[in-house]
Amino acid sequence: MSKSKTIYFDSNATTSVAPEVVQAMLPYLTENWGNPSSPYRLGKKLVGPIEAARESVAALIGADSAEVIFTSCGTESINTAITSCLYSQPTKRHIVTTAVEHSATKNCCAALEERGYEVTYLPVNRDGSLDLKLFEQSLRPETAVVSMMWANNETGVLFPIREIAAICRQRGILIHTDAVQVPGKLKLDVNELGVDLLSLSAHKLHGPKGVGLLYVRKGTPFRALIVGGHQEEGHRGGTENVPYMVAFGRAAELAHAVTVQSQRKLAALRDNLESEIFAKIPHTARNGAKEPRLPNTTSIAFAGVEAEALLMMLDQLNICASSGSACTTGSVAPSHVLTAMGLSPVEARSTIRFSLDYETSEEDVAYLMSHLPRVVAELRAAASPRVAARFRNSKLVAQAV
Amino acid sequence: MSKSKTIYFDSNATTSVAPEVVQAMLPYLTENWGNPSSPYRLGKKLVGPIEAARESVAALIGADSAEVIFTSCGTESINTAITSCLYSQPTKRHIVTTAVEHSATKNCCAALEERGYEVTYLPVNRDGSLDLKLFEQSLRPETAVVSMMWANNETGVLFPIREIAAICRQRGILIHTDAVQVPGKLKLDVNELGVDLLSLSAHKLHGPKGVGLLYVRKGTPFRALIVGGHQEEGHRGGTENVPYMVAFGRAAELAHAVTVQSQRKLAALRDNLESEIFAKIPHTARNGAKEPRLPNTTSIAFAGVEAEALLMMLDQLNICASSGSACTTGSVAPSHVLTAMGLSPVEARSTIRFSLDYETSEEDVAYLMSHLPRVVAELRAAASPRVAARFRNSKLVAQAV
Repeated sequence: MSKSKTIYFDSNATTSVAPEVVQAMLPYLTENWGNPSSPYRLGKKLVGPIEAARESVAALIGADSAEVIFTSCGTESINTAITSCLYSQPTKRHIVTTAVEHSATKNCCAALEERGYEVTYLPVNRDGSLDLKLFEQSLRPETAVVSMMWANNETGVLFPIREIAAICRQRGILIHTDAVQVPGKLKLDVNELGVDLLSLSAHKLHGPKGVGLLYVRKGTPFRALIVGGHQEEGHRGGTENVPYMVAFGRAAELAHAVTVQSQRKLAALRDNLESEIFAKIPHTARNGAKEPRLPNTTSIAFAGVEAEALLMMLDQLNICASSGSACTTGSVAPSHVLTAMGLSPVEARSTIRFSLDYETSEEDVAYLMSHLPRVVAELRAAASPRVAARFRNSKLVAQAV
Repeated sequence: MSKSKTIYFDSNATTSVAPEVVQAMLPYLTENWGNPSSPYRLGKKLVGPIEAARESVAALIGADSAEVIFTSCGTESINTAITSCLYSQPTKRHIVTTAVEHSATKNCCAALEERGYEVTYLPVNRDGSLDLKLFEQSLRPETAVVSMMWANNETGVLFPIREIAAICRQRGILIHTDAVQVPGKLKLDVNELGVDLLSLSAHKLHGPKGVGLLYVRKGTPFRALIVGGHQEEGHRGGTENVPYMVAFGRAAELAHAVTVQSQRKLAALRDNLESEIFAKIPHTARNGAKEPRLPNTTSIAFAGVEAEALLMMLDQLNICASSGSACTTGSVAPSHVLTAMGLSPVEARSTIRFSLDYETSEEDVAYLMSHLPRVVAELRAAASPRVAARFRNSKLVAQAV
């Protein structure tokens, strides 16, 4: 079925480290262990590989390598982007974001509110889309930054970042986008997009966990979040994590090589999974618009099912999926993304996200579908009459798919 | 001479990754690549290894594992410690530190000054020591944190952190120490020391570059610097870098196993190197007190020599040493540590730091000393009359060693 016998439908949470990526980084954990800032060859010889990696990640997003900062993760990139816009424009203390951001943005903004900054969280429609009129109305002279995800990690729904960036540019407001879910799945060109700052994370594209990227357009005011030595041209202190930088470079090359055909094939596989679910399992609904959406993601509410119980049963079948972001797993609250879209807590708690990858095969989908209808039916049958009644009264059941 | 034929006297800059450490982390880059926050076995099985690593790093410093936060580097730990003390006590906007801190503290404080915080940089004496009277006088009701390194990375000189912590405790002021250079070289026990926060970095103790530790004593108010998901109990967002956490755990075990005898042997080897230099090379002087000092570090001024030229010649002989912190290499300014100790810019620029390791052998020292006197003599002979005169007039030449 698969080498590890694990059928993985959770690529938005993380991806395996590609063997080519491990191979590329290994020498920098063994013989090439010097400090790149050192004045002798053992150190200096590492500057070339770092800059080559920087070229590769810059090429992935159509940036100049001088516009790319290596960080330790997507969360650091996002936190750096937002705080940099605030600290470099001290008279502007207002942030515009949305109600469906990843916790890296959401909780960073909440922490900044605690410190006296003001945040507007834009609502979304039932399909996860944004009201551009509302967005324009939210902008103020004191708005330091607009920070919005490009692709939602839970639903895959895309925001019109190009249009949003154009509006920001017109108003002289900095725009940052969390594009963590995008590489390899959509064409990514920072100049076409028009954003000032953009965040990525290597582990979503078969690189290791522990290295991120922050794109900062030339000329954008900047203040570092992690302040120390002269590393990353003073934009990010800390001795360089050479192995992971090299790894990210190799992973970026792999993601950059993905063709439009592959992306279409991925979307077709995902669409097929959706159709099968809707055909074979009653009382199910997609959360979020069908398009524009990432080609690999689907978020499905299974009325009458507790997602956590369903995930546990799937795990017993070696199928990995999730109820939303791994970064909020274990939280007692239902997904803030889904409730912002108007789902009730009960509906949100009945939702499973399936996120596919180029490694996902038709056989994987067939294996999932050979079990999913039965498992859902069993859980519904086992539900207490009280729970079942709650779900019967949910709007979801009445929804046409 | 050594396997790699590189004779390494720059362990304060970085250390090689121990083969045991690479072995320990490798499975987490290959088969065990899941996201530890995921709700299925592929992810959940990683929680155990992370917590075992946390136990190991906690044991190294005598802490409870619940008091230990994994970060991406020493610089992030230090930045987090200082900003956490400020953000959790918003009415206190004053920081006390010293003039000889690592750039992670120095530049973090400078950035905070730009944002309206007030910083006192305590001067040091000629031998690098602190005036405790001056320190006490610097403390104010609005002091949020005292941040001081325990062991200076350039000279090895130790600050009396235990005494300083006791004074802070008495005044109700939080105390953070940058102990990055300490593990394996001195006994490290956070309870004996009495600090509230303490920073470490794995790559100084044969772990990889890209993972650090922040100790936060139970009950200490805390605000995260990198805010995102619930990772690290909400103290540090970002998907866990499992391989490097495991690596740090293994490296901590190795450092923890270092015996007092080994430390004494290391000090004897360093003392021998110093004596040889003073005996065989005229016009040389140690920067900083002989004791209390790290057992592995010596900072030597070679009058009439440009350190950068000397390092280049040593590199040709496969000898690695540095003129100070790698984190400030390439800077045109002379070392802020040495000038704070009263050295002239010229004297500071004539300084080489030799930092030894348990891997350093008597043969390594003999090899260095078989070349160093000649190289220094050649450089002095080649110096332009103007440069030579400048050095002849320096106080350094007159100093008895």
